[in-house]
Amino acid sequence: MIKQKPFSLSFRIIISNDTGRCLILRRASTCTDQPGKWDFPGGKINPSENFNDALYREVKEETGIEFVPEKAVGLAKFELDSVNVVCVMMEGKNISGDVILSDEHDLYKWVFVDEVLKMNLADWFIPFWKEYSQNAETE
Amino acid sequence: MIKQKPFSLSFRIIISNDTGRCLILRRASTCTDQPGKWDFPGGKINPSENFNDALYREVKEETGIEFVPEKAVGLAKFELDSVNVVCVMMEGKNISGDVILSDEHDLYKWVFVDEVLKMNLADWFIPFWKEYSQNAETE
Repeated sequence: MIKQKPFSLSFRIIISNDTGRCLILRRASTCTDQPGKWDFPGGKINPSENFNDALYREVKEETGIEFVPEKAVGLAKFELDSVNVVCVMMEGKNISGDVILSDEHDLYKWVFVDEVLKMNLADWFIPFWKEYSQNAETE
Repeated sequence: MIKQKPFSLSFRIIISNDTGRCLILRRASTCTDQPGKWDFPGGKINPSENFNDALYREVKEETGIEFVPEKAVGLAKFELDSVNVVCVMMEGKNISGDVILSDEHDLYKWVFVDEVLKMNLADWFIPFWKEYSQNAETE
């Protein structure tokens, strides 16, 4: 049997507001992985939790805002110490509420799609974002 | 609050063998959705089951073969009556075993990537496969 790092499934949501900007969150300096880098709301799906519930729970926990998930737009793939992460990237629309951060993040910002790569984005999302922002330009 | 069909997460694995062909399974006539159409091994992740375990379980149940998951290659997106399905498409390598089908399928076939669209493929995978097979050609 060939040994391999197990695969793990995760997700992030690109939540945009009325001005067309999307919400990014800065990972706290206490984060084990990628501290100080910019990330999107989302995370793992808890055991016994369905995907739809996880979408709402993570966004609520990490941002406090209300939103509507709209569609899946691609995958970000990266390795952590013990797992191969497959991260489903979703899009959603902000509908109400001010952002209230959890301990996991220390700053938030609403930015245009073409500004995201100018931020110190978590390495995990860079290949995905290059393609995503190119598609957004040609739409 | 805007009402919307909930999102559900699913997966399929494109398992290839030594000849470069991949395994497709024909959905039994008793299937509620897409009976008689060709599909790939995979399905839903059970509650309390992690993604990696689900990969092995579904392939074992549906095909009986041993395989190694290799990487995620994209998304297939489709609607069922009650859910918006986001289906993570993986690639894997067959390592041993003869195919033994479950009740869900009544036929299997090993086919080249460019032959899949000539089969009566489940509608769900057609947009994904068009892009996937194009990328395979240019690799």
